[in-house]
Order: sequence, then structure tokens, then C-alpha cells
Amino acid sequence: MADTVTSEYALSTEPKLRAFIATVLEKVGVARDQAEVVGDVLVAADMRGVESHGVARLDSYYVARLRNGLMKAKPNYEIVRETETTVLYDADNGLGHPAGKLAMQKVLEKAEKHGSAFGAVRNSNHYGIAGYYAMMALEHDMIGMASTNSVKYGAPTFGRDVLLGTNPLAFAIPAGKEPAFVLDFATTTVPKGKLDVYKRKGLPLKDGWAIDEHGEMTLDPDAALRGALLPLGGFGTDHSGHKGYGLGLLVDILCGVLSGGAFGPTLPNISEAKEGAISHWFGAFRVDAFRDVEQFKADMDRELRYFKESQRVPGADRIYVAGEIEYEKTLATRRDGVPVHVKVWQGLEKLAGELGIPFELSR
Amino acid sequence: MADTVTSEYALSTEPKLRAFIATVLEKVGVARDQAEVVGDVLVAADMRGVESHGVARLDSYYVARLRNGLMKAKPNYEIVRETETTVLYDADNGLGHPAGKLAMQKVLEKAEKHGSAFGAVRNSNHYGIAGYYAMMALEHDMIGMASTNSVKYGAPTFGRDVLLGTNPLAFAIPAGKEPAFVLDFATTTVPKGKLDVYKRKGLPLKDGWAIDEHGEMTLDPDAALRGALLPLGGFGTDHSGHKGYGLGLLVDILCGVLSGGAFGPTLPNISEAKEGAISHWFGAFRVDAFRDVEQFKADMDRELRYFKESQRVPGADRIYVAGEIEYEKTLATRRDGVPVHVKVWQGLEKLAGELGIPFELSR
Repeated sequence: MADTVTSEYALSTEPKLRAFIATVLEKVGVARDQAEVVGDVLVAADMRGVESHGVARLDSYYVARLRNGLMKAKPNYEIVRETETTVLYDADNGLGHPAGKLAMQKVLEKAEKHGSAFGAVRNSNHYGIAGYYAMMALEHDMIGMASTNSVKYGAPTFGRDVLLGTNPLAFAIPAGKEPAFVLDFATTTVPKGKLDVYKRKGLPLKDGWAIDEHGEMTLDPDAALRGALLPLGGFGTDHSGHKGYGLGLLVDILCGVLSGGAFGPTLPNISEAKEGAISHWFGAFRVDAFRDVEQFKADMDRELRYFKESQRVPGADRIYVAGEIEYEKTLATRRDGVPVHVKVWQGLEKLAGELGIPFELSR
Repeated sequence: MADTVTSEYALSTEPKLRAFIATVLEKVGVARDQAEVVGDVLVAADMRGVESHGVARLDSYYVARLRNGLMKAKPNYEIVRETETTVLYDADNGLGHPAGKLAMQKVLEKAEKHGSAFGAVRNSNHYGIAGYYAMMALEHDMIGMASTNSVKYGAPTFGRDVLLGTNPLAFAIPAGKEPAFVLDFATTTVPKGKLDVYKRKGLPLKDGWAIDEHGEMTLDPDAALRGALLPLGGFGTDHSGHKGYGLGLLVDILCGVLSGGAFGPTLPNISEAKEGAISHWFGAFRVDAFRDVEQFKADMDRELRYFKESQRVPGADRIYVAGEIEYEKTLATRRDGVPVHVKVWQGLEKLAGELGIPFELSR
């Protein structure tokens, strides 16, 4: 983690970054309360160390799509079907973050009342880190789940066509003294951004990350960027790549097919500009429907420590549990500042100038 | 698949195997209706090609544990906590299959009424294939989920201790003309049985399957059997082994911690004989809470075909979707007979003799 805070990075703060993002989006037509949600989700990503899903996307993705009309600044987020414990929203091609937050809030409200609930959103756009929405369950002592499909970068097991997004799945489970268990992962072996980083650094990829355009496994970042990502488990079935492929397809079904949104054949790939093609999925249930919350949390602490305190393989410094690195990173950035890559920083400064808003991001 | 039906295998039929299993279990004290559930689940595994979870376990695991008192033949399966949409059972150290079926039936009943539901079972035992319970949702036009923790065989990322079971996760989603999507997978890269098969055949393992007792990756089946399985994604984090580890721990929490059963530190490893230490988790929700079922199924067919009909990598014969191989195997065994390994067959014949019941398994 230490290498992200170097001279390549400038430091901002959580409130300054949040406010700046909200002001930028308001300036391009987004309602203030919705713009603030986007700020909250993007800054949460930067603070958790998931730079690829943070403020770096503000100009290049969100503002660009709002300005060129690919995404609506003033959508009508609407419930289209609802039962006691389920809800389906249509996001009307608006920003994904407010739609996602709205849907997860409704899921939590229903689960609070009935014990458990599920939700989905169609005709949405990229909503940032899935973990943000799953983690909304934590303060309610619930277990949260969230997922989203995405533009296509990945191939199925034994296939060479680009058919699947990186399709993350996230689960958040409250603990007591220990940080919450937060598992948030792309169902491809690595995210596409990792190929870009390896290309920039001139490093070879690892086995099982990607195939070239002919369907052969490749370690060359350029060839991989013309090819496709492989599912978690890698090429073929020797290392159980079919499991990662199964998870990726599961996500596309739970998000796209279930919601009546875009899926598989109608999902765009990265080079296609298409409106509102992304769908999300959410779930939650109450811990106290199963156990007394304090007992559950005490056992969660015991469980998490059991893993963290176990014996390491030679050469390993530490055994983590899911969400721990991101939790520590969040504490560190709150204390030391939120790193923003200088190229992103310069882009934001330019954007502020264009929009005629103050640029006061420095810590 | 062809290699499973050779001279090493004898052929039985679905009804004969089911009836035999039920009679054996009844003879060792299990109520007939519960014994029939076990027969159904075990034969479903054999028909799906999951030999390791089929009739092969009848004598060596289920009957052995019933006879030596490690498992109760006449348990009191009891609901200990319940809300509108959740249920927690205590299996009283009985057979896992009837407990699992009971819990999933209750989950489906609640989801039918309210839209969605979750369930868990504690103090249970090995319940066969998780996919069986997830698939119970299909005939109700629901999406089903099932999971179970298991005795410990696996290590966490960067760890060398045996802390985790193979902890499968299963999801079943109905389709129209296509077979249902059924994803049922161990969260370790491979199941333990695969090490046994490679040992028997004298073959080296693949990278990322297992570590030896010192925590070093090994290709030697004997060393691996003294060591631990690796999570899906393999050794370390280069191939995202932390994702498989996260999924394995997720399952242990959803099953063991949530239910108040055994988990992590209190779960036995394979060499320990411990009573009722296994817990299960279930979930379901109605498709029609989100979309009209017929539209959903038509889109499922379109989605599944999109993957199946895509371009293959060089040398690959076919692109599958999850559950397709097992579905075809089920049709084939219904037509051609259910293969039972001759060693298992001989064991069953001996068992029938001991119990004084007829042995009429031949097709």
C-alpha cells in the first residue's frame, strides 16, 4: 500500500474531495443530494485504496457521459415492481450511485420490517464499488450483499469472445471489536485496470490473467488489452476457472436478466458507448433473526482472529481477513490525507476551470 | 465423463439405489421418510456425476457414524428461531439431508408468501451436494441458494494451518427450454477427493491446488494430503487466491457463526470425530417479484445460449454453462444406468449381508 503515497500523488482530504465532486456534478446538472451520494461513494473507494473506482473516474467517465448526453443528469428513479421483501427500480439512465443507494436503503427498510429482502436496479450506470452498498447493512446489524454487471472485458471458460463484465460480488458482515468482514471482488482474476498498470510499468502479466485476441493465454499486456480477461481460476479448468466463469455469469443473471435490463448479448463492451446498460442487485437480512447480535459479534471476533493469528507460510508477513486492508487504508487516509494521482489532480484542476468552480483540494 | 463408465463400475438404477439406501438407513434406526430423503440426495449426486458425494459415502460415513453413535438416528429437528422470512433449525446431530430439506422447504414456503427468505441449520452433519437444496427452488420459479461448511481441509491465503472446509456455495436459477443454471462449487481450488484420485493414479498435482505441511506449494499428492488445500485462485495473491479464501470464510460465517453452530476454531478437521459440527445456510426469492416468469425464462435461454454458442479457444470442443454437464449426466444415467464403483458396490453387498437385507442393485 505504501507505494501509492509517493510523489506521483497529491494529498486531499475526505470532506474536500466529497464537496468538490458534489459541486462538479451539480454544475453539470445533477441534483445536489444525488451529487453528494456520488461524492460519498467515490471518496469511499479512494480511501479504501480502490483508486480505479474513485475520483479518477469523475471527469473521464461520469462528467463526460453527462456532458455528451449518454447519461441523464435529472433521471426519474422509479420503483417498477415491489413486494413486501423485494423491490425493482428503473434508474432511467441516471447516475448509478444514487440509484444503488436508494435501492439498498429500500432493501434495508424491508429487511428491518420482515427479516430479509432483495432488490435490483435496471437501466443504470457504473455505481462505483459494490462494497459500499453491501456495507450499508452494517450499521443496521444486518448482513448485506451487492453486485453489479459491467461493460464486457472477460471471456468464459474455453471461450475467446468478450462476453462478461468484471461483475463484482460484495458481502458485508458486522463484527464486534474487529473490523467488519467485507468481501468485495471482481469475478475475473484481475480487474482490467491491472493490465493498464502492467503495461505502463512494462511488466509481464501472470499466468491465468488474460487471453489474446486468438484465445491463447498471454503475458503481454498489449495483447491482453486486445483480448479478454480470464475468470477467477484462470485459463481452462485445471485451476477451476469454470468456477470464476460461473460466478461472473451468475452476476450477469442476478443483475441483468432478473431486472429486465441489459445482459450478455445486449451489454456493451468497453469500446461501445451505450445508454443505461448496467444493472445492480442487492440483498440483506437481519442478524438477530438468527442469533442475539452481541453473541454473534463476539463469535465474529473469535472467527476473524482465528484466521489472523494462524501460522503463516514461509516469507509471509501477515494473514488478512477480507476488508481488513481496506479498513486500515481508510483509517490511514483519514489521518494522512487521501492520495490522488497527479494526472487525475491536474485533470480535476482543468475541469474546475472549465466549470468556473473553485479548486481547493489540497490538504 | 466417459471414463467413469468402464469395467471399474457396475450399473444400478435410480429407483433401486434410492430404495436400497433408504432400507439400509431404516435398518440402522432412521425413520423411513428421512431415510428416503438421504437416498434421494445421494442418488442425485451419483446421477450428476458427483461420485464423491453419492452412495459411496453410505457405509463409510453415514452408517458408520450412526452405528458408532457419532450421529443420532432419531434426532429432534427443531426450529429454534423464526421470523416472517427467516428460520433457524437445530438438527440435534441427526443426518444432514433431512435437516437441509426441511429447512429449504420452510425457506421456500416463506419466500412464496413474502417474496424472499433465508434459513440456517446448526448441529447437523454432512448433507451431500449443496446444489440439491438450491435446486429445490426451481420448480417454484424461484432462485435458490445453499451452502454448508465442512470439516477442515484448507488453508487461508498466506497461511499454513488447516482452518477451512471445502465450503461449497450453490445457486440455482430456472430457465425456459435450456436446463437451469446450477452453480455448485467448492471454494477451495479442488476438492480433497481429487488429491486421492491423483495419488491413486500416480499423477502430479497442478499448481495452486495444495500446500505441504510446511506451507510450501506442492505437486506431490502425498505431501498435499499431509498439508492443506488452497483456496480458489491458488497460492498467495498473484492469481487472486484471496478471493477464494474470502469466499470460504464467508461460507463458514454464513453457516457456522450465523447459526450459532461450530465454526473455525471449533470445527473439526478430517481426522477428528466430532458430533453435529456442521452447519448449513439457505436462501430463496421469487422470480416474479422482479419480472414476469415467462419473460425471465425466455431471457435466461437467450443468455445461456449466448455463452454456449460463442467462439471457442483453439482446441476446445465446447463452451458450457454451469449445471449443464451435470444435467446431461443425469439424463444419461437415467437412460443407461447409474455407475457405482466396484469397490463401493462390494462394500454395499457386504453391508446388505450384515444387515440382513436383500441386495438387488443390478440394473
